[in-house]
Amino acid sequence: MTVRTDLALECRELVGESEIEGVIEKKEEKQNVKITRIEIKTEKAALRLNKEMGNYITLELSPFSKSVCQNEKEIEIIAREIKSLIPNSDGTVLLVGLGNDNITPDAIGPKTIEASFATRHISESMPELNFRSVALFSPRVLGQTGIESSESVKAMVEKTNAECVIVIDALASKSINRLGCTVQICDTGISPGSGVNNKRKSLNQKSLGVPVIAIGIPTVVDALTIAYEAGGETVQNKNELSEMFVTPREIDVIIENASKVLALSIAKAMHQSYSVEDLYFLSL
Amino acid sequence: MTVRTDLALECRELVGESEIEGVIEKKEEKQNVKITRIEIKTEKAALRLNKEMGNYITLELSPFSKSVCQNEKEIEIIAREIKSLIPNSDGTVLLVGLGNDNITPDAIGPKTIEASFATRHISESMPELNFRSVALFSPRVLGQTGIESSESVKAMVEKTNAECVIVIDALASKSINRLGCTVQICDTGISPGSGVNNKRKSLNQKSLGVPVIAIGIPTVVDALTIAYEAGGETVQNKNELSEMFVTPREIDVIIENASKVLALSIAKAMHQSYSVEDLYFLSL
Amino acid sequence: MTVRTDLALECRELVGESEIEGVIEKKEEKQNVKITRIEIKTEKAALRLNKEMGNYITLELSPFSKSVCQNEKEIEIIAREIKSLIPNSDGTVLLVGLGNDNITPDAIGPKTIEASFATRHISESMPELNFRSVALFSPRVLGQTGIESSESVKAMVEKTNAECVIVIDALASKSINRLGCTVQICDTGISPGSGVNNKRKSLNQKSLGVPVIAIGIPTVVDALTIAYEAGGETVQNKNELSEMFVTPREIDVIIENASKVLALSIAKAMHQSYSVEDLYFLSL
Amino acid sequence: MTVRTDLALECRELVGESEIEGVIEKKEEKQNVKITRIEIKTEKAALRLNKEMGNYITLELSPFSKSVCQNEKEIEIIAREIKSLIPNSDGTVLLVGLGNDNITPDAIGPKTIEASFATRHISESMPELNFRSVALFSPRVLGQTGIESSESVKAMVEKTNAECVIVIDALASKSINRLGCTVQICDTGISPGSGVNNKRKSLNQKSLGVPVIAIGIPTVVDALTIAYEAGGETVQNKNELSEMFVTPREIDVIIENASKVLALSIAKAMHQSYSVEDLYFLSL
Repeated sequence: MTVRTDLALECRELVGESEIEGVIEKKEEKQNVKITRIEIKTEKAALRLNKEMGNYITLELSPFSKSVCQNEKEIEIIAREIKSLIPNSDGTVLLVGLGNDNITPDAIGPKTIEASFATRHISESMPELNFRSVALFSPRVLGQTGIESSESVKAMVEKTNAECVIVIDALASKSINRLGCTVQICDTGISPGSGVNNKRKSLNQKSLGVPVIAIGIPTVVDALTIAYEAGGETVQNKNELSEMFVTPREIDVIIENASKVLALSIAKAMHQSYSVEDLYFLSL
Repeated sequence: MTVRTDLALECRELVGESEIEGVIEKKEEKQNVKITRIEIKTEKAALRLNKEMGNYITLELSPFSKSVCQNEKEIEIIAREIKSLIPNSDGTVLLVGLGNDNITPDAIGPKTIEASFATRHISESMPELNFRSVALFSPRVLGQTGIESSESVKAMVEKTNAECVIVIDALASKSINRLGCTVQICDTGISPGSGVNNKRKSLNQKSLGVPVIAIGIPTVVDALTIAYEAGGETVQNKNELSEMFVTPREIDVIIENASKVLALSIAKAMHQSYSVEDLYFLSL
Repeated sequence: MTVRTDLALECRELVGESEIEGVIEKKEEKQNVKITRIEIKTEKAALRLNKEMGNYITLELSPFSKSVCQNEKEIEIIAREIKSLIPNSDGTVLLVGLGNDNITPDAIGPKTIEASFATRHISESMPELNFRSVALFSPRVLGQTGIESSESVKAMVEKTNAECVIVIDALASKSINRLGCTVQICDTGISPGSGVNNKRKSLNQKSLGVPVIAIGIPTVVDALTIAYEAGGETVQNKNELSEMFVTPREIDVIIENASKVLALSIAKAMHQSYSVEDLYFLSL
Repeated sequence: MTVRTDLALECRELVGESEIEGVIEKKEEKQNVKITRIEIKTEKAALRLNKEMGNYITLELSPFSKSVCQNEKEIEIIAREIKSLIPNSDGTVLLVGLGNDNITPDAIGPKTIEASFATRHISESMPELNFRSVALFSPRVLGQTGIESSESVKAMVEKTNAECVIVIDALASKSINRLGCTVQICDTGISPGSGVNNKRKSLNQKSLGVPVIAIGIPTVVDALTIAYEAGGETVQNKNELSEMFVTPREIDVIIENASKVLALSIAKAMHQSYSVEDLYFLSL
């Protein structure tokens, strides 16, 4: 039995030792934002943590359910971390919002796309605006379209000649305390089995052919994880529980708020010469 | 500690005896639909079951997540049960969709309203159409409007001179097996503490001044109920778990499908001279 | 034959003289915003202009279709004008978004409500936040609900004990040049025959019992007005043209942008101790 | 000056002669549906009519604004005509909804996709269901995504190995009488300059590499066309008028109804062993 989590921070906690070979870990605090940087440097460490090799940045923020707490400074901190993982060129960035917009905790990807603005069609004709070329895409889910996200995202990467993909996705945490107040940014893309609907295929440099930065916010805990935590291995109804997820009653406010904060943070990372306020009005 | 449920059927199961004084119970099966009728006839029985005195009809149907299963016959069966509880007059019926349309499992009320059609403005001027006068209202939730549903629904009842209210609401079940395949219809209205957001106030004949028929579908189980079931009284994090709910991964399909089936069933109960197919095209 | 317009500024232009008895008119320019204040002081002047007696403030702004142009200063200017017409008390303000959210140019009212935030439920319990009590309501349209907006708004005014109503509505202009770059604020409420759907009933102090401030943005021109302008009285198909309206191809951007600017402006007028940026994060 | 229209029927009317060389025209009436079949057989005829060579079927139906009029028979008639133009194989059909879902009269494409259901992911694994493989895609518009529809549709055709594309689009008519009561089905795809936003690029067999069936419903008239019709060549403000369109006040009902009728008609053409009623429940 394994507890399911998409957070490198929690995978690392589950291993539990004070130091893990092949893993570099740094903690920092800025403006009340706790930042943990985990680098998984070897295949062996990747196996122990059950996460791909690469860099994982976790930001612990004020809760997205309390909109008054977010502010320009948090956005600038998130933007800086995103920027640190994006290839330093001026090619097109394809921004992809994974997930099902009809299931509230899974809608963070499509909602972030909705709150973002595309510039690919104007960055070339109006270079004086200093926009990086950004294209937007929400693939929806297999049941809605008959097309796997991994197929349609690859088609878009090829057609737009994107140099890099940013995927936004809802994550599963093992702890309800992390829901709606954590952002994970990594350079390893999306792994199978993550998100609300855990049948997702890989979206990473190997499958897409370009670097893939993944930005995720935990919005659900598996119902099985809750049951295991309460009752241990004796849990009944495992099959049925595995088809259920747990999410906060205030998930609507979390998604609404988090998607706008992510959209602004990504815009700030893309179009650095603009202030957050300008970007807010641009994305109206 | 009590397990939370809004279903009279489950309250009755929790009591467990083969017969309960003051409770009349009948079971029936029609076209693969299991119908249980529970009448709570005394205050004492109401206290034992923790449900208001009145009539509760529970329909166990093919799952709403499998759209191909629903059909005209199921709709006609639900319609007949709704009709049996509606006052037999020709006054205006106010159809109220409770809940938060931004939280998928709580959206069944507003979505049913969206799939319904109003006739109050045409039933008088075009009596030849044989429509019963129906007005529609989705009060949304306190955090969205600053107004309690109970206040705004009462305001609408008074202003439309409604003779009767039908409220549609998402319910909490104690069992994940009942989610998305059960309809409860009752003549006792909505009680405090039901639904996804359990801070709801009463909507019943006493508070609204007219008969209130409630139609509900269980779409969530409290996270605490899942934890109790797995681990008993020793559960940690009770406060945090009480702010969480459990819902199926396919909740989007359940809500989409169930709201359209309810809308058609209610329309059939209201406008009896029309066929289900006609009503489908009317509600396009 | 009369050309149709909801703008006092255009009614005044149609009269054409340099001075009109009973009408006081002042023009001003602030930060590139042209402000025209028209006060209609007598019944005779009201008849000549075909507008109710009262105060009309018209702001000519940078186009709402160019989101980058809007900024904190414009919002503060609009807020100041709204504030000047609102009764100076601390009672509840009921914010009403008129119109049909399924018709893009008519959606400015409901969309402004969506971008606003309610405080009535927290202003009393948390006086330290310094929020004025604001309740939100979108009545939708008769065909959607079977209830006249005038009925349901009156019901809400009574139930919330509102001291004042602000209605937001789409307006008809006689000129396509005014679409999407004009805001009219007045203290006379809404008159019959205004908006996209011109069968609307009055919403004013007389019908609602409290002061009614109306905020409108012209988003359509009647198709008949366009035809008259091109061809004069000889226009064919008058009946059919009267069922049509004219609107810009970029109406989606206008509505999206204008509704957020209005929501922020109204919030600034309501909650004066907050900055526009704080209000933006509050309304996320 | 040319009057703009996307309807072959109107292009043919504009030429005006009783017979046109290279054009075959047939009229028929079934169940109150008027069907006109125009085949443009030569390049010369194509130039005269200003339409691509190919087959155009125009159905004149009862108005989509009166939902009660549509019925199973109309859907079966539309389905038969669609079927007649679809390649008779069992490869994947890519169903594409063009247009901007934020502008009501342009939303018919995306709304039809929303009301349709995908089968590509189940047709192979569950052949016993007898579904043709159908994938769904709504490319949105350039301003929303930074990607041309023609680019993203081509990407999807290649990735899904579609044998055929069906595009659904809003059309411009020259006459307000045709709005909301006409369906055009053709085998020539989409031409530049059609639709609400007339900057669209080609989507046809040449650009996509597979047969392209286009299904369109006229929902707008150009404002310039209305002005020309009223006033002739003397019209002022040509530039501004060309940025405006004319649409019916009841466009919301037309779009809602028409998109569901189209979705059912296409489903019937794809999955012939199912009844319209079954398909309705499948698409809930």
